[in-house]
Amino acid sequence: MLELLDLDRKISKTALERTFPDMKTRLGDCQRAVRAAGVPVVIVFEGWDAAGKGTIINHLAQALDPRGFKVHPVVAATEAERARPWMWRFWNALPAAGNFAIFDRSWYGRVLRDRVEEAVHEGQWRQAYEEVEEFERQLADSGVVLVKFWLHVGRGEQKRRFKRIRQDPATAWRVGKQERRQHRKYKEWLVAVEEMLQRTDRPHAPWTVVEATQERFVRMKVFETVLRAVDAELDRRRREPPPSRQPMPEPPAAPPAQPTILDRVDLKQSLTRPEYEKQLGALQERLFQLEHRLYTARVPAVIVYEGWDAAGKGGNIRRLTQGLDPRGYEVVPIGVPTTEELAHHYLWRFWRQVPKAGHIAIFDRSWYGRVLVERVEGLSTEAEWRRAFTEVNQFEHQLVEFGTAVVKFWLHIDQEEQLRRFQERQGNSHRQWKITGEDWRNRDKWKQYSVAVVEMLERTSTTYAPWTILEADCKLHARVKALRTVADALERALDRA
Amino acid sequence: MLELLDLDRKISKTALERTFPDMKTRLGDCQRAVRAAGVPVVIVFEGWDAAGKGTIINHLAQALDPRGFKVHPVVAATEAERARPWMWRFWNALPAAGNFAIFDRSWYGRVLRDRVEEAVHEGQWRQAYEEVEEFERQLADSGVVLVKFWLHVGRGEQKRRFKRIRQDPATAWRVGKQERRQHRKYKEWLVAVEEMLQRTDRPHAPWTVVEATQERFVRMKVFETVLRAVDAELDRRRREPPPSRQPMPEPPAAPPAQPTILDRVDLKQSLTRPEYEKQLGALQERLFQLEHRLYTARVPAVIVYEGWDAAGKGGNIRRLTQGLDPRGYEVVPIGVPTTEELAHHYLWRFWRQVPKAGHIAIFDRSWYGRVLVERVEGLSTEAEWRRAFTEVNQFEHQLVEFGTAVVKFWLHIDQEEQLRRFQERQGNSHRQWKITGEDWRNRDKWKQYSVAVVEMLERTSTTYAPWTILEADCKLHARVKALRTVADALERALDRA
Repeated sequence: MLELLDLDRKISKTALERTFPDMKTRLGDCQRAVRAAGVPVVIVFEGWDAAGKGTIINHLAQALDPRGFKVHPVVAATEAERARPWMWRFWNALPAAGNFAIFDRSWYGRVLRDRVEEAVHEGQWRQAYEEVEEFERQLADSGVVLVKFWLHVGRGEQKRRFKRIRQDPATAWRVGKQERRQHRKYKEWLVAVEEMLQRTDRPHAPWTVVEATQERFVRMKVFETVLRAVDAELDRRRREPPPSRQPMPEPPAAPPAQPTILDRVDLKQSLTRPEYEKQLGALQERLFQLEHRLYTARVPAVIVYEGWDAAGKGGNIRRLTQGLDPRGYEVVPIGVPTTEELAHHYLWRFWRQVPKAGHIAIFDRSWYGRVLVERVEGLSTEAEWRRAFTEVNQFEHQLVEFGTAVVKFWLHIDQEEQLRRFQERQGNSHRQWKITGEDWRNRDKWKQYSVAVVEMLERTSTTYAPWTILEADCKLHARVKALRTVADALERALDRA
Repeated sequence: MLELLDLDRKISKTALERTFPDMKTRLGDCQRAVRAAGVPVVIVFEGWDAAGKGTIINHLAQALDPRGFKVHPVVAATEAERARPWMWRFWNALPAAGNFAIFDRSWYGRVLRDRVEEAVHEGQWRQAYEEVEEFERQLADSGVVLVKFWLHVGRGEQKRRFKRIRQDPATAWRVGKQERRQHRKYKEWLVAVEEMLQRTDRPHAPWTVVEATQERFVRMKVFETVLRAVDAELDRRRREPPPSRQPMPEPPAAPPAQPTILDRVDLKQSLTRPEYEKQLGALQERLFQLEHRLYTARVPAVIVYEGWDAAGKGGNIRRLTQGLDPRGYEVVPIGVPTTEELAHHYLWRFWRQVPKAGHIAIFDRSWYGRVLVERVEGLSTEAEWRRAFTEVNQFEHQLVEFGTAVVKFWLHIDQEEQLRRFQERQGNSHRQWKITGEDWRNRDKWKQYSVAVVEMLERTSTTYAPWTILEADCKLHARVKALRTVADALERALDRA
């Protein structure tokens, strides 16, 4: 496909001067509309070395209000980035609603440079394709406008440009080994580029190939494309009815359905205190050893606690961390999202908390809020919480692929036990703060939550990141089971490493 | 002083069991009071290797609600940290109002380990003392509670602990070269520690030396000390009248005072368009070259734009960046602070934006908002904006010490020119959005702003970070002067590097 491009496409200086000022004004207007409508815009520039990515990005930067965009040059991964799954840096860089993020190179590096230079093996770049497609689909689903450019120059043109860059002492360093290697391997690159363009050209994330021999032509085509893409999304939003967010109705009582996975939980399981104390000490010692082994092996771990109010998450987490070295773990409490978090894809705040290699992150509530409280209370649309099942599976898959041990707990108690605990808290002056009107309101929706919990467990318990239900009427039993489950999972992850 | 400590101080298990549960409860209550009062708390743990910092931090972590604290292990600086002034990482880690930050080692590393191991020269660690003292004073001034612990064990005890740690395969790696070196050089360390404790023990940031032979004793002393320090601050806040924030009154008209620095600005300076275009092109080319030299020499630059509304900041910045490579600079627009930013020391959000070595950050408005809009509108107390003069000087000094080129512009126009521009904007449909009611309101306070601007220029124009006034009635002149000033400053910074 690329060899058929007319790389001589040009535009005269007069034509540019006639139309470009108006285009810049339109982009300014467009940016204000984007801000007003709360649309996040992601613009990706890929292309041959020396194809002029920097120049066109600077033209966009000149036309945009700096309060609404950020340029992300994607250079070699930093220490912090190498210590996380490779998509981490891109999730972190996502724009808030109403903002532009401009990527100078992007997540396509893995299927281009890393592939051609054999920095990753075939399995890795093939899997990268799947992850990239999933990533872009998730962005588009959440309302992000995605515009992707491939800046194309011929081999001869690239050679001429390298020569010019090398002649200027200020820029000579920019043509290094890597750039010369690309030039030598132009043909191998071409194969990879064509495959990339074909595989990842989607209606929600289309590629625009730009004949980049002439800077003026590039400028016109890029500006036009961005304007059209954004206008289309603004148009779509104007036409579409605002999404409906409804609290979940109470499920019908009869007929008595099949017992669910929650009904089958044996809440009678318990442990005597002497037995508990013996096992707890041994498990804490084992976890301390494992924490240090994780650190030296650079294996990360993610432990998720979800459960009914008053099921004992806090106390369970404390027993888990009691014997650990605080330099190796972090408890991440998940509360109501901040304004900044609400302005991003809902997984953004969790990606930011992904532990680095060798460290443990313990989530007190998690990304499952999407399919629990947000679903039940109608804080998300049905489309949003429905696709979240796939999104969290994919998220956890990326963690596991990186070598992370993922453990997920559902702390289960029955309604009577919860009532008993609520009442006990209210009678204790030091624990009163732990119980609020919201807890009582959640309790009224026990049936709705049950439906949501069962569906969550069924749809997100995967081979690589299974749920463990903790029978938590007896806290001692739940704690010991949690610690043992974590220890076993860490050991398995270490074995895999 | 340290040799007189009774390192055998112990507490019986029964005594601990009698008092400790109550202490934990009190710390929980204290944390909720801290949150309610919006007090940030910083707890620093320094001490001998193997003195038990991890263990005591874990005890605190057990007693605190994870929603309100974060542990910061201060290990070797990361790539990102090495690319900024050394205090950057600590500013970034400061807690929001109502939160605890617990530092496992801290900013004292430079006057201890780096000093004893000769990783920094004498000038550096001596200067570090000054910066640390200024840092802690600034934190205390802004209402942060600072609690600093030195965990002390004797040389023999340290030896016994190293032996025990090495015997356990899980922890053996923790006694490495560095730890053995500390043990060998125990005496040299002791000298540095004593000096540190003496020099930096201040009423607002006191040290507590903890006899750390027995873990139980450490726990009691640390918990007690934290509780006392926080209670004292809560008490102080309850007693003190709420700070008064008053808009600045209009300054008296007569008697005609000495002409100020602003009165002396020659606004007649101008440039013809042909002359402008010639000079602009040459300057942009020169800046392009300098940007690349900065990058290879790893010299950062900070450029600050302040000025009257409609003085032409935006257009000036665009001419500055027009010829630059977008990978090397970032425009940082400073608007109304977010809730998160308001919950931190006001310099926190600017520290987060400090450019990394080799990069240029252009601030469209800046930390000077404290002594301009916040002063005039009464958004800060008088004490706050008054001490800001010293605080920003100190901030900029740290940037310059790191090798940063710091350029600061005040874009000056007169009242008539501003009126003309406001009216012109209102008459142009594409520029109307640029002018709001707030602009008109600011204009009404021209006299107040003039007083604030003059004082700002006089008090924060330093040898290392001087202000440049841009005579901006003629935009062309102001642009060319800005670009030339930046180019000259970058050259000087490169010469120094």
